[in-house]
Amino acid sequence: MKSSVEWSNHSLKIIDQTLIPLEKKVLELNTLESVIEAIKKLRVRGAPAIGITAAYGLLVSILEKKQNFDESLFQLSQSRPTAVNLFWALEKMKSCYQENKKLSAEELFTQLERQAIEIHNEDKQSCKQIGLHGNKLIEDNINIMTICNTGFLATGGIGTALAVIQTAFEAGKKIHVYVTETRPLLQGSRLTTWELKELGIPYTLITDNMAAHVMKEKKISCVITGADRIAANGDSANKIGTYALAVLAKYHKIPFYIAAPISTFDFKINSGDDITIETRECVEITRIINNKIDPKQINCYNPAFDVTPNELIDAIICEKKVILAEDFNTLRELNRSNK
Amino acid sequence: MKSSVEWSNHSLKIIDQTLIPLEKKVLELNTLESVIEAIKKLRVRGAPAIGITAAYGLLVSILEKKQNFDESLFQLSQSRPTAVNLFWALEKMKSCYQENKKLSAEELFTQLERQAIEIHNEDKQSCKQIGLHGNKLIEDNINIMTICNTGFLATGGIGTALAVIQTAFEAGKKIHVYVTETRPLLQGSRLTTWELKELGIPYTLITDNMAAHVMKEKKISCVITGADRIAANGDSANKIGTYALAVLAKYHKIPFYIAAPISTFDFKINSGDDITIETRECVEITRIINNKIDPKQINCYNPAFDVTPNELIDAIICEKKVILAEDFNTLRELNRSNK
Repeated sequence: MKSSVEWSNHSLKIIDQTLIPLEKKVLELNTLESVIEAIKKLRVRGAPAIGITAAYGLLVSILEKKQNFDESLFQLSQSRPTAVNLFWALEKMKSCYQENKKLSAEELFTQLERQAIEIHNEDKQSCKQIGLHGNKLIEDNINIMTICNTGFLATGGIGTALAVIQTAFEAGKKIHVYVTETRPLLQGSRLTTWELKELGIPYTLITDNMAAHVMKEKKISCVITGADRIAANGDSANKIGTYALAVLAKYHKIPFYIAAPISTFDFKINSGDDITIETRECVEITRIINNKIDPKQINCYNPAFDVTPNELIDAIICEKKVILAEDFNTLRELNRSNK
Repeated sequence: MKSSVEWSNHSLKIIDQTLIPLEKKVLELNTLESVIEAIKKLRVRGAPAIGITAAYGLLVSILEKKQNFDESLFQLSQSRPTAVNLFWALEKMKSCYQENKKLSAEELFTQLERQAIEIHNEDKQSCKQIGLHGNKLIEDNINIMTICNTGFLATGGIGTALAVIQTAFEAGKKIHVYVTETRPLLQGSRLTTWELKELGIPYTLITDNMAAHVMKEKKISCVITGADRIAANGDSANKIGTYALAVLAKYHKIPFYIAAPISTFDFKINSGDDITIETRECVEITRIINNKIDPKQINCYNPAFDVTPNELIDAIICEKKVILAEDFNTLRELNRSNK
């Protein structure tokens, strides 16, 4: 598999991202239950990839013939709360269903399949465009810092923040990436270092608490991250630790960029205050101490995301263009031009 | 053992801190080599505890009769580069040696043993005084954030930053501690949660990258950390991640305090720029992904400490008093009054 999610011959396949880099195992998801389990357990992750998987998940559910469309839609919508791409993709599938529900079951399925593939293909195109637009912000011979994983594993194409890095690298720019490991689930050290190695892009892995020191000691030219949900004012929810990087970048006078497709925008909410932050199991934090420790013995707090306020973001890179901070009041126009 | 380092009947014992909280194993260190190994491998750690162990290590070396005093002194001084308490303690032992080297071997040993025990006892007293002075800064009914481990395991007494927390708690103040796990070696999640639990002080463990989010979402009244070396201007080297917490605290308008004995001050250096930062093995970062991964396959950078500039520190708490930021120009007077 060359992408993290694939649909062919009525079959949904994903790369199990919990096993990378130790193993590249492909899972075939034949039931709605297995699709939901894969999203909840982060076997498939990354805001755009979750949306694509959920769209295909509805097709799996129809083929499985166990639940009706609305019930499947509801269950998928409950799988993870923060990334809005999930709801965006399900909304598109719902509209398609409603427009075509008078057709025969076979024709309806064909229309829904076409819609899901379109969501996937559009994301692939978006990644490419994000890379091209973002590349304009990237100078030659620089160090870039990033968090979590935002490459092909996280999307339907070459990624969001990593698309910018890859595009700049392939344009011949000399780039070195500082990858924060991204506790608790180590998407940086497990997935991003693996992707960068595959791409031949030089990188250095650091723990999350080294970011400030590295910003001070090494010359970091910019921080680029993805996003899971962007409010109408530009406030952006992303992997826990992103907000810290944005504060640290501001202190060190380093530009901070978000790269995300328009499907990540949630124009129904005015600011980040309205974004639901998923809190996950404490065992994700305590597991690494040693399997022998009962995680109940340690009190933990495990928010999976945080919100970076718009005043800490220098630009948002989407598939249409780069929006500089001074133009964040025009973000809603992206929505109109997208329809 | 009630303390992390003990000397009795010509025998040096430490608690192996790499095994806590899974196991509380006491190691008897009978050779200079084993003392140096214990310091290098962080079986004994915490700036004051390293100094005390090194002082006793010289006694072990004399009893072992393998190397001369100067050679042992040199080898111990090479064990770790950042914590100045190590050099401070060795310097005290060296002075004692030079003052008494004309005595019989037995009498010389007695004098050196007296000096080592004095270093240990003075640190115990310092911890108590740091707790009492620091307590004045702590209000009732608050959340405090800390990093790494600064309690009895790290010192000859009840600790530095944790001494302040313990003293305030025992004075009846309602305190909740947010403990950052402190990657890569998890001194926060392994050691500090264990100590706080033993003391009955309520705490919540978070990963390092959650600190900013927690500062924004929960009411954090202050951040208190220890230090490994404090320059004459107040710039403080401490566990990697401390500098990040100081920047984040400043952004969130939260006071940031350092608690450390005067043995942590290095008046020979004017600023943090002159502090050597230890860089440790990359395997400390990559080991947790899975033992099966060859750490050589991932490029890492692993600085063990960072430097927090004085402008981010609101007060330094030592055994003599609390020095507010506006009085950092008087820090050198601590040295004079200490002599």
